[in-house]
Amino acid sequence: MRDVWIAGAGMTRIGKRSERLQALMTEASLAALAVAGIEKPDAVVIATMNPEEFVGDGNFASNVATYMGFAEVPALRIETATSSGAAALYAGFAEVAAGLHRTVLVVGGEKMTHLSTPRVSEIIGRSIDAYERSYGATMPALAGLITRALMARHGVGLREISQVAVKNHAHAARNPYAHFREPVTIEAVMESRVVADPLRLLHCCPISDGAAAVVLTSERAAVRIAGIGQGTDTLAVRHRHELTSFRATQAAARAAFQMAGLGPERVDFAELHDAFAPFELIALEDIGLVPPGKSGGATLDGETAIDGRLPINPSGGLKARGHPLAATGIAQVVECVWQLLGRAEDRQVSGRVALAHSIGGLATNNWVTLLEAQ
Amino acid sequence: MRDVWIAGAGMTRIGKRSERLQALMTEASLAALAVAGIEKPDAVVIATMNPEEFVGDGNFASNVATYMGFAEVPALRIETATSSGAAALYAGFAEVAAGLHRTVLVVGGEKMTHLSTPRVSEIIGRSIDAYERSYGATMPALAGLITRALMARHGVGLREISQVAVKNHAHAARNPYAHFREPVTIEAVMESRVVADPLRLLHCCPISDGAAAVVLTSERAAVRIAGIGQGTDTLAVRHRHELTSFRATQAAARAAFQMAGLGPERVDFAELHDAFAPFELIALEDIGLVPPGKSGGATLDGETAIDGRLPINPSGGLKARGHPLAATGIAQVVECVWQLLGRAEDRQVSGRVALAHSIGGLATNNWVTLLEAQ
Repeated sequence: MRDVWIAGAGMTRIGKRSERLQALMTEASLAALAVAGIEKPDAVVIATMNPEEFVGDGNFASNVATYMGFAEVPALRIETATSSGAAALYAGFAEVAAGLHRTVLVVGGEKMTHLSTPRVSEIIGRSIDAYERSYGATMPALAGLITRALMARHGVGLREISQVAVKNHAHAARNPYAHFREPVTIEAVMESRVVADPLRLLHCCPISDGAAAVVLTSERAAVRIAGIGQGTDTLAVRHRHELTSFRATQAAARAAFQMAGLGPERVDFAELHDAFAPFELIALEDIGLVPPGKSGGATLDGETAIDGRLPINPSGGLKARGHPLAATGIAQVVECVWQLLGRAEDRQVSGRVALAHSIGGLATNNWVTLLEAQ
Repeated sequence: MRDVWIAGAGMTRIGKRSERLQALMTEASLAALAVAGIEKPDAVVIATMNPEEFVGDGNFASNVATYMGFAEVPALRIETATSSGAAALYAGFAEVAAGLHRTVLVVGGEKMTHLSTPRVSEIIGRSIDAYERSYGATMPALAGLITRALMARHGVGLREISQVAVKNHAHAARNPYAHFREPVTIEAVMESRVVADPLRLLHCCPISDGAAAVVLTSERAAVRIAGIGQGTDTLAVRHRHELTSFRATQAAARAAFQMAGLGPERVDFAELHDAFAPFELIALEDIGLVPPGKSGGATLDGETAIDGRLPINPSGGLKARGHPLAATGIAQVVECVWQLLGRAEDRQVSGRVALAHSIGGLATNNWVTLLEAQ
């Protein structure tokens, strides 16, 4: 298997955007290609979760490749719900690792803010098991259920969960690409309106538009994809053995660490999937970045802050950088690359090994990617 | 790059099916796995063109993997419109070729017949360039335009085009998996009602339900994927240099033949994408299976019939075996494997090299796969 390197990374500002999805994906792609010094990649892998229903276009690999001026470049689309970006990175990785292509542009994006929140919620809700959906389950409702179970465990209360949001908003305030750039206080988080008890508005990520892209290559570059792993779980949450840890994350981390030949103690910083603030705490423990039961305390103690021992979500995370679904898994990797190259400006952290973690659906299809500066 | 072999192949009967899409995909998968002697693959790649709108479910890789009892097996979804099955085969091929997985189940399926024809047409129509769509362009309308241009060329008239349908219906009559099992006369084809002038009903493939699956492996088996290539073109038909040949097919064939190290003269039989009967004639010439301008004559002369020099669509093709969108690219490969292994019963042809050709959208994203019996 050939080594796979990242030759360029780029993204759009995340937020409420007026541009078309094709334009957002092109902006991110051209930024990544410019850094890589490549005019035209050998192949394109795109990620969008549901362009048919979000923007009314299908055949989206051909659609966006044509829009970019790459009509003759092989392009395909990957989808694993909200982790589609990470899955596309994997598919591009496989193409380069197999020697099928030398340079592959991987780009993910989503455009949702032009739709009403109930309509967005309905479309995203198709990721949930149909039987659970028939009882009115939505993503926030299931996340609320999981959060309640988590709070029954020692060391995780509303304060710990809320501190995740406070921290990530503080990070995003330093990130010009972020959806939200205003810090929030813990009181504001704890007093924001209830979305799905015990989750409040400021525990939840926003609906965001945006795109992110990386250029993969078989030629040596400054950052290598050291490991990439996928983990899966039952579609139905009611069929899980446990609610307060995600088997899909555990399996993805195991696979990524095994491929990279290193362990969680080697990770210097990470971008974790905090679509709901408590999910960051669950991921910290599932990946082995903090010992079981210690994620709440580590967060309150500032260990995971940008100036802490193990900075988590220096970008602001899904919570505050924003969550344009299929862009997110790639945006996390873009942030890691920028950090590893020392190009993260006001939010710069130090380190040589970075980890990105993406959740698809309600933790049915998760990915962990390890990036190493050379 | 490791060699990639097909250890098992299976499919459902194609047609109007009452089962859920998940059940159809499971039926095909279990058949392929049984032939391969594998209980559980290392990974799954699924293809569906638009499960959200066709059946109301998203996150479909997790959905169908869970349904199959493979909730803990890594699964992802690939989409390139109507060629999604072929694209999934490519993604699975890359995973095995790179050494990421040893056995990969690739399964494609679609369920559409429960919807009205206008609704199916609307969903499939999202594959078309939005500007052309805004003038009422549908797949049959664009295919009619292309057919009219084709008929302006020497050697292709309504009789040649109609003979493709007659031939493929005759083949399907021998295929227990086919949607249509009644032969049709050339008069019946030429007198069937006009769908999009000059295309008549019996020049067009039906709306079908069904699924098909193959098991890929890095261990030597009886059939090898000798080559697989993708070709693409502009989304908008009006931006093409030519209407009567498809650049996407030409590029896909070139890439597949190059990987396999052989040329079109080595192909013993083929499954070609005849969603509209004239497309079989275009593909014959684009792939180089017959010389330019000779496809009409070769068809009238019986060269491409099941007992001819170069049997085309022994399964009955999309025209008569049926076209369950994302299943089709895999169903073609299943037919080729069965033929190569001498298991095609009443429709058996002879040969050691088979070719499968799949069109995505209006020839925006095409694939050619070469299969070789060892």
